[in-house]
Amino acid sequence: MTIAADAAATKILLSESEMPSHWYNIVPDLPSPPPPVLHPGTLQPIGPDDLAPLFPQALIEQEVTTERYVEIPEEVQEVYRLWRPSPLFRAHRLERLLGTPAKIYYKYEGVSPAGSHKPNTAVPQAYYNAAAGIRRLTTETGAGQWGTALAFASAQFGLECEIWQVRASYDQKPYRKMMIETFGGTIHPSPSELTEAGRRILAADPDSPGSLGIAISEAVEVAAQSPDTNYALGSVLNHVLLHQTVIGEEALAQLAKVGAVPDVIVGCTGGGSNFAGLAFPFLREKLAGRMAPVIRAVEPSSCPSLTKGVYAYDFGDTAGMTPLMKMHTLGHDFIPDPIHAGGLRYHGMSPLISHVYELGLIEAVAKNQRECFEAGVTFARSEGIIPAPEPTHALAACIEEALRCKETGEPKVILTALCGHGHLDLPAYGRFLAGEMVDHELSADAVAAAMASLPAVPA
Amino acid sequence: MTIAADAAATKILLSESEMPSHWYNIVPDLPSPPPPVLHPGTLQPIGPDDLAPLFPQALIEQEVTTERYVEIPEEVQEVYRLWRPSPLFRAHRLERLLGTPAKIYYKYEGVSPAGSHKPNTAVPQAYYNAAAGIRRLTTETGAGQWGTALAFASAQFGLECEIWQVRASYDQKPYRKMMIETFGGTIHPSPSELTEAGRRILAADPDSPGSLGIAISEAVEVAAQSPDTNYALGSVLNHVLLHQTVIGEEALAQLAKVGAVPDVIVGCTGGGSNFAGLAFPFLREKLAGRMAPVIRAVEPSSCPSLTKGVYAYDFGDTAGMTPLMKMHTLGHDFIPDPIHAGGLRYHGMSPLISHVYELGLIEAVAKNQRECFEAGVTFARSEGIIPAPEPTHALAACIEEALRCKETGEPKVILTALCGHGHLDLPAYGRFLAGEMVDHELSADAVAAAMASLPAVPA
Repeated sequence: MTIAADAAATKILLSESEMPSHWYNIVPDLPSPPPPVLHPGTLQPIGPDDLAPLFPQALIEQEVTTERYVEIPEEVQEVYRLWRPSPLFRAHRLERLLGTPAKIYYKYEGVSPAGSHKPNTAVPQAYYNAAAGIRRLTTETGAGQWGTALAFASAQFGLECEIWQVRASYDQKPYRKMMIETFGGTIHPSPSELTEAGRRILAADPDSPGSLGIAISEAVEVAAQSPDTNYALGSVLNHVLLHQTVIGEEALAQLAKVGAVPDVIVGCTGGGSNFAGLAFPFLREKLAGRMAPVIRAVEPSSCPSLTKGVYAYDFGDTAGMTPLMKMHTLGHDFIPDPIHAGGLRYHGMSPLISHVYELGLIEAVAKNQRECFEAGVTFARSEGIIPAPEPTHALAACIEEALRCKETGEPKVILTALCGHGHLDLPAYGRFLAGEMVDHELSADAVAAAMASLPAVPA
Repeated sequence: MTIAADAAATKILLSESEMPSHWYNIVPDLPSPPPPVLHPGTLQPIGPDDLAPLFPQALIEQEVTTERYVEIPEEVQEVYRLWRPSPLFRAHRLERLLGTPAKIYYKYEGVSPAGSHKPNTAVPQAYYNAAAGIRRLTTETGAGQWGTALAFASAQFGLECEIWQVRASYDQKPYRKMMIETFGGTIHPSPSELTEAGRRILAADPDSPGSLGIAISEAVEVAAQSPDTNYALGSVLNHVLLHQTVIGEEALAQLAKVGAVPDVIVGCTGGGSNFAGLAFPFLREKLAGRMAPVIRAVEPSSCPSLTKGVYAYDFGDTAGMTPLMKMHTLGHDFIPDPIHAGGLRYHGMSPLISHVYELGLIEAVAKNQRECFEAGVTFARSEGIIPAPEPTHALAACIEEALRCKETGEPKVILTALCGHGHLDLPAYGRFLAGEMVDHELSADAVAAAMASLPAVPA
């Protein structure tokens, strides 16, 4: 029931029986555990009870588990099979266009119902909530990929789904609303008049473009008020990264089929779940000495939490309703410029990725959006897939590495995650092609100003 | 190098080595050949020279070939491998939702770069034109699927691509323009001021919503004027249907893997290429007595060429520039209401499908668009894929058949072609969900009026 693969194949496929049966938790394999999450009042490590108003017990356990592997429930696997295992592509045409000796592989998650990697965690989150008797889920969304994924997953398990979308993206990407409604979800622009957090922001700035931090505050506020309603987060947290490791586990199996071992792995980072999903299983192999890839996170120059933020305890949301997490952050008050990669506009980086970065196990670079869209157009015209703005960051870094290989003659194996298609982001391509797109490099002053919002936590 | 499949699998996959090496031509297997295409001046059968100003020799030969199989060039197969073989899905979740004993399979072509079946013919058409030294292709497009496909295929072979899109769709679906431009194509709304044919229509009706017939006239006019420019058609003609048979050939192999034999095959019909692509290989099996499926074409009630048109010689375009083809037609002056399934708004039906219908080898039904969108939403919420408006017609007929099976208890095997996703058609879903969509059933008076434009051809 396995699929043999030809080394020259364009697509390397796995059969449904080869789909991973477990998610991979990197924590027990790290040289040290990540710092604890703190209660904002007591500054003491939080316990399961602190999270219970928002999350079901099963997800709280996954958030703190030290087990290396967590079994994927059959009910989740059944929904995964609508699109998983996802294909791994060899970018023959892009390589030819670049004239590079590098071998470029991309793991394509755009085949999912939402068109991105997000359903990998939306489905188990909806499943565990439904199993716990929850009736409704609330969430935030940036570009809309996560909101779409949760609306789809909620429909699969009979849950209602209510979504706050960052207004900058809500206005830029009107098709998201229609897609979410087609899946049966409800969507509001954020900040909204529906919550205390939203009203406070609108009072200060009626034209606020919103931010993921604000949208999280709104969704959390609503969930905290109703016992039958929980909140679901699309990135950042450990259990979200855990669910995404199906990407890397499949990619490992697929590369093994063609006898390829990656020299460089690049992924885009917003909250970090797509990057971790691809990279962590390979990092396990690296830590075990079975391979030695360079692993590189690529973030937008306008929201560079890893490359320009500080590693400090901060809130996950703007209103300061979440626990404090130690992470690379630009400050929870930070409102990034409305670049088109809405999924990368988060003030902080996943605590687990931040920790791995501090340990020196991964690298990070920042890219401006015009270089990224240029890479997106090059990719579309050679490989045929129009990438979402988020993974164009990874593609820009891929192309940079492949051109470096052209200089040096090294036939490196480069692996990236093409975490979604850009069908609902086409207006951004339209603006890029019309020459109307500008870069938003974050100034040192803006970084310093944002840091002022960091809470005081004793070392 | 083949892929074994589990009978309970959700996706039935083929490896790249199992991709068809030949297209299938049904003509030699039919009990009688289709009527000849006539020169509009002489009313005599046309020869290759009549088509040479628009098409390369290789395609003209495929248009008239009586060979049963035509080999797919390696250059075309190489591009096909970007998405082919396409998956065949078993609609487990839809079946469960309907409570039907029927087994529903759908062949999904939305995995292609353009998001539809159209690249199956766009790629060979671009290839043969490039091989013949052509520099530019012109074409028409309705919903935009075909224009996108030709823009993508042209980029693969270094051709320029200029597209006239029916204005009703151009205005309804602005993302198409951006997608086509991302692939490097140029797009104009039709009717346009750029051609004699367009100017004539606009002089009579400055607000003309356009039609496929008008857009064809514009694209043909431009191609006929330049020796380095050819025209490409996205449906209707024999060579287009030929290229699409990869769909049915793959589906045959996939069903065989799980031991399923179809009882009913349904496909939507506009010009007919998607329907023929799925159905003709199965019709070959039926004619040879190896299976006995009912084969059913589903068309929109607003443009019902098979169910309400006449079988007569007519022009393929509105200006009367094409040869005369015997087909089911509503008259080449017919301008359908601007329903959302833009790809089904063609006044005529492929001559080959018309002939097969006259021979009694297939059935036809018409569906109103609200029933179709209802089916599309049901499908999206159960199977996760948001279908393009065109295949919602087939899905509505599928659901109707599955519910009939629920009444009778028959565990029929139903096969359909999900020929594209609806990511760029989301405003139509938005209108449907908002209750703003209306049906456009064609009146007998409108049919009679349109028939007045039929040319006089002696029987």
